[in-house]
Amino acid sequence: MSSIVAIGSMAFDSIETPFGKAVRVLGGSVNHFSLSAAYFAPVKCVSVVGEDFPADHLELLQKRGIDTSGVKKEQGLTFHWAGRYSYDLNNAETLATDLNVFQNFAPEVPESYKSSEFVFLGNIHPPLQLKVLSDIKSPKFVALDTMNYWIESQKDELIAVIKKVHCLIINEAELRQLTQTHNLVQAAQTVRSWGPQILVVKRGEYGAVLFDHGEAFSLPGLPLSEVKDPTGAGDSFAGGFMGYLASQNNFTLSRYTLRKGIVYGSVMASFIVQDFGANNLMKLTRKAIDERYEKFVELTAFHLD
Amino acid sequence: MSSIVAIGSMAFDSIETPFGKAVRVLGGSVNHFSLSAAYFAPVKCVSVVGEDFPADHLELLQKRGIDTSGVKKEQGLTFHWAGRYSYDLNNAETLATDLNVFQNFAPEVPESYKSSEFVFLGNIHPPLQLKVLSDIKSPKFVALDTMNYWIESQKDELIAVIKKVHCLIINEAELRQLTQTHNLVQAAQTVRSWGPQILVVKRGEYGAVLFDHGEAFSLPGLPLSEVKDPTGAGDSFAGGFMGYLASQNNFTLSRYTLRKGIVYGSVMASFIVQDFGANNLMKLTRKAIDERYEKFVELTAFHLD
Repeated sequence: MSSIVAIGSMAFDSIETPFGKAVRVLGGSVNHFSLSAAYFAPVKCVSVVGEDFPADHLELLQKRGIDTSGVKKEQGLTFHWAGRYSYDLNNAETLATDLNVFQNFAPEVPESYKSSEFVFLGNIHPPLQLKVLSDIKSPKFVALDTMNYWIESQKDELIAVIKKVHCLIINEAELRQLTQTHNLVQAAQTVRSWGPQILVVKRGEYGAVLFDHGEAFSLPGLPLSEVKDPTGAGDSFAGGFMGYLASQNNFTLSRYTLRKGIVYGSVMASFIVQDFGANNLMKLTRKAIDERYEKFVELTAFHLD
Repeated sequence: MSSIVAIGSMAFDSIETPFGKAVRVLGGSVNHFSLSAAYFAPVKCVSVVGEDFPADHLELLQKRGIDTSGVKKEQGLTFHWAGRYSYDLNNAETLATDLNVFQNFAPEVPESYKSSEFVFLGNIHPPLQLKVLSDIKSPKFVALDTMNYWIESQKDELIAVIKKVHCLIINEAELRQLTQTHNLVQAAQTVRSWGPQILVVKRGEYGAVLFDHGEAFSLPGLPLSEVKDPTGAGDSFAGGFMGYLASQNNFTLSRYTLRKGIVYGSVMASFIVQDFGANNLMKLTRKAIDERYEKFVELTAFHLD
């Protein structure tokens, strides 16, 4: 089984939804990603936290087999994101992005990380993503996630990193913004022309679409009778997707391996949205994960009798 | 093979989308429904047209095996709908609804229609839907479609008809409006408590969800590189769905029969949106329909190796 090096934020999230609110809960892209991916494969984190970050949370990650030796502790405050969702839980309105210790963060990739073959460049400054990627000796599968904040403020730098990865994972509205193209098939062609032959489009409750060398696979979201907080859904999706791929010891990543990865990603996303913060990612079993995978089979099967 | 009695509008549609416009093209719910369903099963229409309606269009329907003996011709103008779509083609903005000859329409169901076992109550005044249903001797499967116009103006009358049908077909935003419930699973429970055990939720480019006695099936939309005009997508979807069910001679409507019906409905919708008006529904072959059905298999399959 291959390990995954992942860079992204460790953060405090303050979230409002029509179903409640949560103030300064532990979040961040690499936190959600790692908690999700660790059910499938070993994860090694690169990130930075401030003096206000609880030490016992890093211990909790370590207990789950997540290597945090690449997480620096710096003077100052931890990254903080505040956002609000209306009844349409597919798109967040960002209320505040306080970069804090990320402002001057220079990631250092531990030697023990550098032979990993899977790399997840989570949602963070594009130059930090590039730095981490350049430190990995021979990456076999690199995926990148991003968000509107970077598309608006560092688009050229972002596209320069996208050109170096195998797979772009992005939500639908942000794909449209990045490519300035409304039609999904045309937007996928634009991304492919930049380099990545694999594109994963996240559509919130509508599920996800995978474009794999131009061929489309689409998986609907699992209808849930209660959704409390979609924060972290995208990162836990990426964690299930990358984690499953890394667990397969198969770098050719066949059509169906990628598709099953999308299903495992959707499974993990369907768990996290049922509670605030990452609570639901702490208490899963592999059995519960595989049972929910079967729910996606039941949800989508039609060509049998 | 059973025949389907369908009531709905024959209309002129004036449509604007970001990709062009069409003025007074032939449309209407029963027109789109019939052109779609006739590829699968015999259809018998109930509707009304004005003096301005081209006789050769009714002949065209007849040539396709559609019985128009229940289509009255009255003094006055044909129903006219004008609408506009933005880049988000999932929801139309209605600019005008000119009922015209529908204002005082009293449907008469020909004797030859009354033994049909499948009934489609297309989007039109709820009392007209009720009248037609009451004239059918022993309906085995009745589906109803509606829209925001009737939810806003005749909600009680509408719910009274919904209580009498087996299946409600409705778009997602209108389901939320009708049930005053945002969550889809909860909205489905509300509809089920009214009577229909089968609910089909249309989600535009995101596909469709079938709730069948509480169990969910979800089919994503086919990603298309060009979508010109979504008008009629819902009715051609209903036509493919009902047409396939009627062709199966099987009133128990097993789980997989209903699911395949959703796929055939989505196939027909995917054709009509590729051109303005109903042009694309005129020139299909059963072979082209079945080839596109296979596209949906390819789009959604993951649990094979």
